[in-house]
Amino acid sequence: MRVDAFKLPTDGPADVRGLTALLDDGVVRADELVCVLGKTEGNGGRNDFTRDLAMRALEDLLAPRLGLPPARVQDRVVFSLSGGTEGVVSPHVVAFARSGTWSEEPGPKRLVVGTAHTRPFTPAEIGRMPQIVETARAVAELAGELRLAPADVHLVQMKGAIPRADHEAVLAARRARTPLRNDMVHSRAASALGVALALGEVALADLSDDVVCDDWSLYSGVASCSAKPGLQRTEILMFGNSDRATGDLVVGHTVLKDILDVDAVRALLAELGLPVTGGQLSPEQRAHVVGVFAKSEADPRGSIRGRRHTMLSDDDIDDTRHSRAALAAVLASVVGDPCVYVSTRAEHHGPLGGGPLAIIARAP
Amino acid sequence: MRVDAFKLPTDGPADVRGLTALLDDGVVRADELVCVLGKTEGNGGRNDFTRDLAMRALEDLLAPRLGLPPARVQDRVVFSLSGGTEGVVSPHVVAFARSGTWSEEPGPKRLVVGTAHTRPFTPAEIGRMPQIVETARAVAELAGELRLAPADVHLVQMKGAIPRADHEAVLAARRARTPLRNDMVHSRAASALGVALALGEVALADLSDDVVCDDWSLYSGVASCSAKPGLQRTEILMFGNSDRATGDLVVGHTVLKDILDVDAVRALLAELGLPVTGGQLSPEQRAHVVGVFAKSEADPRGSIRGRRHTMLSDDDIDDTRHSRAALAAVLASVVGDPCVYVSTRAEHHGPLGGGPLAIIARAP
Amino acid sequence: MRVDAFKLPTDGPADVRGLTALLDDGVVRADELVCVLGKTEGNGGRNDFTRDLAMRALEDLLAPRLGLPPARVQDRVVFSLSGGTEGVVSPHVVAFARSGTWSEEPGPKRLVVGTAHTRPFTPAEIGRMPQIVETARAVAELAGELRLAPADVHLVQMKGAIPRADHEAVLAARRARTPLRNDMVHSRAASALGVALALGEVALADLSDDVVCDDWSLYSGVASCSAKPGLQRTEILMFGNSDRATGDLVVGHTVLKDILDVDAVRALLAELGLPVTGGQLSPEQRAHVVGVFAKSEADPRGSIRGRRHTMLSDDDIDDTRHSRAALAAVLASVVGDPCVYVSTRAEHHGPLGGGPLAIIARAP
Amino acid sequence: MRVDAFKLPTDGPADVRGLTALLDDGVVRADELVCVLGKTEGNGGRNDFTRDLAMRALEDLLAPRLGLPPARVQDRVVFSLSGGTEGVVSPHVVAFARSGTWSEEPGPKRLVVGTAHTRPFTPAEIGRMPQIVETARAVAELAGELRLAPADVHLVQMKGAIPRADHEAVLAARRARTPLRNDMVHSRAASALGVALALGEVALADLSDDVVCDDWSLYSGVASCSAKPGLQRTEILMFGNSDRATGDLVVGHTVLKDILDVDAVRALLAELGLPVTGGQLSPEQRAHVVGVFAKSEADPRGSIRGRRHTMLSDDDIDDTRHSRAALAAVLASVVGDPCVYVSTRAEHHGPLGGGPLAIIARAP
Ligand SMILES: [Ca+2]
Ligand SMILES: [Ca+2]
Ligand SMILES: [Ca+2]
Ligand SMILES: [Ca+2]
Repeated sequence: MRVDAFKLPTDGPADVRGLTALLDDGVVRADELVCVLGKTEGNGGRNDFTRDLAMRALEDLLAPRLGLPPARVQDRVVFSLSGGTEGVVSPHVVAFARSGTWSEEPGPKRLVVGTAHTRPFTPAEIGRMPQIVETARAVAELAGELRLAPADVHLVQMKGAIPRADHEAVLAARRARTPLRNDMVHSRAASALGVALALGEVALADLSDDVVCDDWSLYSGVASCSAKPGLQRTEILMFGNSDRATGDLVVGHTVLKDILDVDAVRALLAELGLPVTGGQLSPEQRAHVVGVFAKSEADPRGSIRGRRHTMLSDDDIDDTRHSRAALAAVLASVVGDPCVYVSTRAEHHGPLGGGPLAIIARAP
Repeated sequence: MRVDAFKLPTDGPADVRGLTALLDDGVVRADELVCVLGKTEGNGGRNDFTRDLAMRALEDLLAPRLGLPPARVQDRVVFSLSGGTEGVVSPHVVAFARSGTWSEEPGPKRLVVGTAHTRPFTPAEIGRMPQIVETARAVAELAGELRLAPADVHLVQMKGAIPRADHEAVLAARRARTPLRNDMVHSRAASALGVALALGEVALADLSDDVVCDDWSLYSGVASCSAKPGLQRTEILMFGNSDRATGDLVVGHTVLKDILDVDAVRALLAELGLPVTGGQLSPEQRAHVVGVFAKSEADPRGSIRGRRHTMLSDDDIDDTRHSRAALAAVLASVVGDPCVYVSTRAEHHGPLGGGPLAIIARAP
Repeated sequence: MRVDAFKLPTDGPADVRGLTALLDDGVVRADELVCVLGKTEGNGGRNDFTRDLAMRALEDLLAPRLGLPPARVQDRVVFSLSGGTEGVVSPHVVAFARSGTWSEEPGPKRLVVGTAHTRPFTPAEIGRMPQIVETARAVAELAGELRLAPADVHLVQMKGAIPRADHEAVLAARRARTPLRNDMVHSRAASALGVALALGEVALADLSDDVVCDDWSLYSGVASCSAKPGLQRTEILMFGNSDRATGDLVVGHTVLKDILDVDAVRALLAELGLPVTGGQLSPEQRAHVVGVFAKSEADPRGSIRGRRHTMLSDDDIDDTRHSRAALAAVLASVVGDPCVYVSTRAEHHGPLGGGPLAIIARAP
Repeated sequence: MRVDAFKLPTDGPADVRGLTALLDDGVVRADELVCVLGKTEGNGGRNDFTRDLAMRALEDLLAPRLGLPPARVQDRVVFSLSGGTEGVVSPHVVAFARSGTWSEEPGPKRLVVGTAHTRPFTPAEIGRMPQIVETARAVAELAGELRLAPADVHLVQMKGAIPRADHEAVLAARRARTPLRNDMVHSRAASALGVALALGEVALADLSDDVVCDDWSLYSGVASCSAKPGLQRTEILMFGNSDRATGDLVVGHTVLKDILDVDAVRALLAELGLPVTGGQLSPEQRAHVVGVFAKSEADPRGSIRGRRHTMLSDDDIDDTRHSRAALAAVLASVVGDPCVYVSTRAEHHGPLGGGPLAIIARAP
């Protein structure tokens, strides 16, 4: 198996010219496309329609090439579009294509990517052990299919299930004193803990319904979870390095302890063969970087490095926009490229105030 | 002369407990206070009343200690409060006190600070040569008083005049095809060019009314100008290093070529005896840094490092907030402290998309 | 007793020139001031410092005139400042002064105003029956002091207690399955139900901990409650009409069933002797209106008049700003004056999507 | 000719279920559709992509039914989508279909609708007499085709040309002291003056380049103009009443003198046979109203009814959002329906602070 990836700047949410050219020029075949990750210039919130516009444009582009109606394109290609290009962030997508077969013989580890999904969840399962355990199962199974040991999994991007509950179910759960948790916060949290469990970052014995959104010492450094109201099952996208893959890409990850953790960024780049000598990658090094994916979070304790921050008491600008702007600028300053993908909310993704960072780069 | 400076985190715009303690404990005498620079948690725009609240609190604190009515305090102490603590920025003030006399003998260069103002301007002078030339004169005179050669001036913070014009004057100027420029953009621009002229950054021969806001190759790397409608004369606050000063502080400056210019930040820190070995100052080094002052700007050409940015087409969040969030995060990531002072709009302050940075630190 | 009221437009949050003139001219005596209600041009949210700035200006004005230090002024005069002048709303304050004694003989009913407070609350009491019952007690007692029958009470403005709880108390309450409700939503809700209980709008038998923020059919049409973290006891300001009062002012109230309930506004004006013949009060009628006080609410069910609204899914502008802008414009269009006071969040204040409206006017 | 119109609430910008049902049920034929006007839930500004999303959805719906590629649909059907559903405004579209032929005999006047466009403009013509005169010519010609006397034209909705100029043209014009006006403000202004000229609202003798954006006493009460960078020619959509048309719809218009001009709204409704007896149309009357179209404007003089407003000094929320929220609430309060279409910026559309209002209703 070989994975290729293409960083494609966009002129607007509906701009698919970059991918169109790759397809038209035969550089990428539509049926080899696995996923498209990208940043669009909305607010990243509930009324961010730039993601819908981007998906519609991608569906219209790919439907005829895949021989599918537009509404079925996402059964074949995963779109992970994150709104919010605050500060220096430049709108772009990274498209991943997979081709070839597994090598018979081991070689240097190279990027693999795969997708899976959990079984459907009931509303009562969300944010509790059943979601964690089933997510872990699906993640482990996918790692197996991709021939990845836990240590070789570096990014698990998920769209978490939030099945809707009717009013009676809500009331019944409340009366039973086990209020439903089928919301974005708890779905993301349980998704992350599911990854952590699957990859050995936390032990089953340490998990329970009570630790979810409560014991922040438990976390994954590899997960990157969103959650979508109405989704019945969680969709999983996994990136790792396998010695049976070919190509020239590798992925690595680290955990940022806070938004200013520039040394973790540098250490990860060094691991990927891109040691920063001054403060920023050289142009030659920078050309090796294909994708930078991180989770930001305004520290819920209200401070960073012992100093008060104001992100959580600002009623003009959402804290997600503040924290994305800040972390993205820090990442862009080290890499030297404002095409970085930072999404927000990082419950059980790294420690409080911190979160995971994964970088995909050409092997040196 | 000896200048001492104190970085004081605040809990809100009206929090003056830090300065109160310094005064009560006798660490600082009210009559030695020269200026208070700080960031307050407003939007930095027209409806940012956090600066007024902070100034009112400072006036109420200092008036009895200076034996002045509150409304006269700013005749004695300069307040330079900048709204907008986007992203990681932590609200704080830096208070500067000046004491003692000039040394008879030269020693190692140390921080000096002084204030001055221009003569009153007419509306027609703003944004044109008269403002530039008079600003240069006042800057040069102040440098002389502070015994500073041009190369020893590292930060000239100014509040620029914007005298109001009546409707007739506006119409007359329009009819004469020399429309008034008594607005914030042109006042800031001419202030910066005045500093540049005074310090030899640009030559008089290169200046004319036409270059203002047009020839962006002309700029100062030392100025940091705001402008205030209704102000008749420009207020000037100058920081530099003199060999006749004592104390343990020094100031340095550099020009950031854009928001991601982390190598310039590091070079300046090295100059100040604080070389960054990894990506960030060590805690010991960080303790030497007293104040970080910069100007940010969303590149008006709409891109950074060849990538499109969206700061200037966002009608939800002002570009000033985007660019402050980004530059402040970058600076904080190198210094390791979110107490940084970034103000916005940088016309003729450094190149397009870039701006000046000054750092005040304890000498090593 | 005689109450006088003065509508005073402001040029900014710190503008107290209107009240200063009244005091200097002897129109109002400082020791007769009971309260100042007003709108300031902030966002009305957590980071709205315009209220602090306005209070500081009022304290500085009144302290010498009351012979008190500024920090004690609010023990004597109630300031109820609401941020957010969205749309047409014009920043202003309404100052109320009380003088004279009760009449021996009954006359036409005229405006009275008085203040009181509850006992201190514990965190566990907030949002539950103890807060409701004690609030009702204090409201009833104040009505008695003001010689007001329940039907003569038309506006009870409250700043609700939110005593802080330590982490242990939070955990203990959670474990006991009676999670603390010491937040703004529950404090406002219980304050309103306390008023409703005191005035006979709801019966004690219908109240329980469970109905708070659950049974929206229970509400007050007279309450207007905010809540303030850290406040130990609830502060109460009551307006009503007494036949033992003199002066020329009266107050009336109604319940708006939603933001578009213009007929309720007109009916209330008619009751006050100001029938609207076209769509708006005539200039002569308008001159009779001294204060317009309402509560707005984006209907939590997401629709108004059967049509979807988008106020609750907007991550750029808070729903409080949307609903204030809308209701204030409707009120201003009927009265013909953009000096209206609309505050937001209306839990158990009128029905879902609706809220109370009180108007103070000169008797015809 | 007969025009039918359908008010269709939407669940999101891409929701075309209402129109789909009309087409599927044979109520409307795709080839009879003339235009779709509607409000989408974006910010109405530069980064509002909800209009693009809505247009894309409409194109995808209509393309197969019109036998056209999606990109050609707008050659046949005019989409006038306005972003910004502030306050109570409910997202919706109004679709207009035209069928049949002109009556031979005159009858009661009924709604007609038609489209046209100007010749292409050069950048130098925009905002000056050539744009005004050519717009007037095209408007007059279209009125003739629709058999409308000037007094029978009630709404002229336009998308104004803004041809792009290269840098040399900009400089040349500046040097010639006739700086280009190819911006949204001037294009809208000249479009409106073009309508005013065509319909006799202003005289040619009163027009000149100098009056544009200067003499605000000159305006149209019928125009509703936007402007689009890159558009070469202005697109015109005209609504009026003809005695040779059939159907059951009529259109009327008025000029609001400011945002609170509720009496003008009521007078217009009365003209349309819908006199308001209380403050709001009755449900039966309301059912007659198909479309409400207005222009709002934060009075540039900073006050309304002699009271200061804060819409133009708010750096958190754009003044367009404030003024739309306010005017839409006022209109919705009279009609009793939050499906109203208010767009902003009203240069030479009604007086300063005011603007035109058109209502389309079923004849009584
Ligand atoms: Ca985290
Ligand atoms: Ca610059
Ligand atoms: Ca309510
Ligand atoms: Ca107008």
